Amino acid sequence: MFQPARGTRDFLPEEMQRRNWALDRIREVFEAYGYEPLGTPAFESWEMLKLKSGEDVVNQIYYFRDKSDRELGLRFEWTASLCRVVASHRELPRPFKRYAIGPAWRYERPSEKRFREFWQADVDIIGVADVIADVEVIAVAVDCFKRLGFEGFLIRLNDRRILEAFVEITGMPKERSLDIFRAVDKLDKIGVEGVMDELAKVGASAEASSRLLELMESKGEPRTTIDEIRETLAGSEVGLSGCNALSAIAGYAAAFGIEPYIVVDLSLARGFDYYTGPVYEVYAEGFEEYGSIAGGGRYDELIELFGGEPTPATGISLGIERIVPLLGKKGAFEDLDLGPRVYVASASDAVRAKAIEVAQKLRRSGFSTDLDLMGRSLTRQLDYANRKGFKRVVIVGEKELAEGRVSVRDMATAEQWEVKLGDLADHL
Amino acid sequence: MFQPARGTRDFLPEEMQRRNWALDRIREVFEAYGYEPLGTPAFESWEMLKLKSGEDVVNQIYYFRDKSDRELGLRFEWTASLCRVVASHRELPRPFKRYAIGPAWRYERPSEKRFREFWQADVDIIGVADVIADVEVIAVAVDCFKRLGFEGFLIRLNDRRILEAFVEITGMPKERSLDIFRAVDKLDKIGVEGVMDELAKVGASAEASSRLLELMESKGEPRTTIDEIRETLAGSEVGLSGCNALSAIAGYAAAFGIEPYIVVDLSLARGFDYYTGPVYEVYAEGFEEYGSIAGGGRYDELIELFGGEPTPATGISLGIERIVPLLGKKGAFEDLDLGPRVYVASASDAVRAKAIEVAQKLRRSGFSTDLDLMGRSLTRQLDYANRKGFKRVVIVGEKELAEGRVSVRDMATAEQWEVKLGDLADHL
Repeated sequence: MFQPARGTRDFLPEEMQRRNWALDRIREVFEAYGYEPLGTPAFESWEMLKLKSGEDVVNQIYYFRDKSDRELGLRFEWTASLCRVVASHRELPRPFKRYAIGPAWRYERPSEKRFREFWQADVDIIGVADVIADVEVIAVAVDCFKRLGFEGFLIRLNDRRILEAFVEITGMPKERSLDIFRAVDKLDKIGVEGVMDELAKVGASAEASSRLLELMESKGEPRTTIDEIRETLAGSEVGLSGCNALSAIAGYAAAFGIEPYIVVDLSLARGFDYYTGPVYEVYAEGFEEYGSIAGGGRYDELIELFGGEPTPATGISLGIERIVPLLGKKGAFEDLDLGPRVYVASASDAVRAKAIEVAQKLRRSGFSTDLDLMGRSLTRQLDYANRKGFKRVVIVGEKELAEGRVSVRDMATAEQWEVKLGDLADHL
Repeated sequence: MFQPARGTRDFLPEEMQRRNWALDRIREVFEAYGYEPLGTPAFESWEMLKLKSGEDVVNQIYYFRDKSDRELGLRFEWTASLCRVVASHRELPRPFKRYAIGPAWRYERPSEKRFREFWQADVDIIGVADVIADVEVIAVAVDCFKRLGFEGFLIRLNDRRILEAFVEITGMPKERSLDIFRAVDKLDKIGVEGVMDELAKVGASAEASSRLLELMESKGEPRTTIDEIRETLAGSEVGLSGCNALSAIAGYAAAFGIEPYIVVDLSLARGFDYYTGPVYEVYAEGFEEYGSIAGGGRYDELIELFGGEPTPATGISLGIERIVPLLGKKGAFEDLDLGPRVYVASASDAVRAKAIEVAQKLRRSGFSTDLDLMGRSLTRQLDYANRKGFKRVVIVGEKELAEGRVSVRDMATAEQWEVKLGDLADHL
């Protein structure tokens, strides 16, 4: 028997309905904020994909050659394709607010939480240098999660420039900053010793590494935390611009309704190489140990790297493969009625054609309607409707039909009553 | 500058909104008929993909090896994955009515109408031997097209078993039936001479080929056409079972509301190897020369081939890359208002935070709302809102705000009036 390829999954109808329900709600919120959809292909040129993805990620890209020997790869996230489009379509308005929802692929070791095919839902704002854009995309994510039924949140916030300043202050090799960020980003995964080992490989002394990790320990309410770190960073221009960005974010947070959730956390680095300013991650309260359910940051240099005009940009990505299981754990799907709603049963073979007509009319009136295709007896039709969770069954019988009526049965109470055919849609 | 890979496309927001509008309507109709979504991965094992795809198609599959040297390929349509799932999940109910909407990939010569990444929207019914299932999936397609604004249709209908009988009658080599079907399927593309050449390669005499093409010329209103062909096929059991299937389809067609559109056309073969009974294609009236906008057929042996129980199955696939351009040609998108609806402008910097709060409240009330992120002057904000097609602009000004009011501007008439902040959502 054939199985899905390793690390990929099938989603049977019940699971798929839940995923679609979540994706539909997310799309509604994206559109409520005025984001517009952009479609880009599942595969892109290898040259483009590897341009600024960082070593760790390049090794995870599904690579192939087409029949003309072009080097291609499956997208591993949405940002590279977005930057390609922005670079080559200079006619796009500013700001350009776009969303994208769909799968991406990475060759990672599969686990209960990691899949080789995984869905992301992204919003990005192109063309806005002010951190109001960073706050808006975080607010979009939070509103999506509220719409899905989550209540409390933790928003971890940092700025890459503060980490750069830390590298300076501790005397670590500046040209290895990206390797250093990648190492400290793994703190939760590999622990202090693991990070110290990785930093040693980059040429950092044990003393400098300890000092870096110590500096990164600061976290807390934005204003206090930023004030504290300002003193440490007094001599570093780049570090202070990071502080200013975080202060400005805190300033906008109240108006956008996300103030209560923000914690400045100087240990946050994020894995991608391309971030240039604020970086952020969102966690659902009570589910912090499952990891972030959204994350992103500012990438003001990436569009230029793809051949476009220098253009500020920021964005956040919602991790569907984390969100949907958490919704399941919260019991969010228990009250959802996601299946079809009306079943049309025929009492005998003589009325089958009429039952089809009744079903067709209900479908065209917007009712999700099913009917027997198996030539089953009425008892077995009712049994099927019951197992599939239909709440109402319309029974088409010869006698009632002759009087222009059908029966409607409430499956929960087994009550049954007659309705005029012409009134059926209104009645249901 | 990087471009999308050959044969693939970007969809900029306006185009993408149109595609999404069409896909959303299609999904609504699928769900109105009680079909449930099934998710399967974008790539599958190569062994599975090539199992029954036919030579022409196998050569078009994007093939690659993962880092463990597994042979994989991108899906080239949805049916193989569906059969894999049905074969390995015997707990699925019967009938199993599933839909799938998404991209597939084929390495074809790109043209204005053919792309290497293309979207399909499929419905299939698993477990129903009776042709009522074939009629239902055709009716689903027709209802989708009606929902999208198409009016008249041509449904071409044939049965593979009639073509098999023709092969018998003309004395062509029976073991080459699939090659013969593939050849005659190209009639529209390569003409009579082209087909004669291909048939000669399969070992058919010129006389037999001419006779075959002549037999395939019959087409017209179902009952008459079937009656005529019954005489020709009198001696062929397989041919007569094909006729009976077409008669039964004609019998159900009225109840499903698709009777006026059906034409039995014995030249219809369809490219896939796996069809075993009825095959069908749907064309939009007035746009026949653009080719079919949906097509499918019965594949009663495919699930067994994938390792499952012998299971009857039928399904239809809607070709999104044909449908969306036709909708454009019909002008179907001209009256659609697909963009955001309300723009919140700040009259001065002092009220920016308040403008954000107003926008956030509207978004949470379900309005698609945008606001200035660029620190633009009021004039430039109104100019932007106008260019982006916002019909209503809410202007937040200091003086009005002090009285708990904001202004609402109708962009078409330039009329402007004041509204209490608390009444704003209701007012809009």
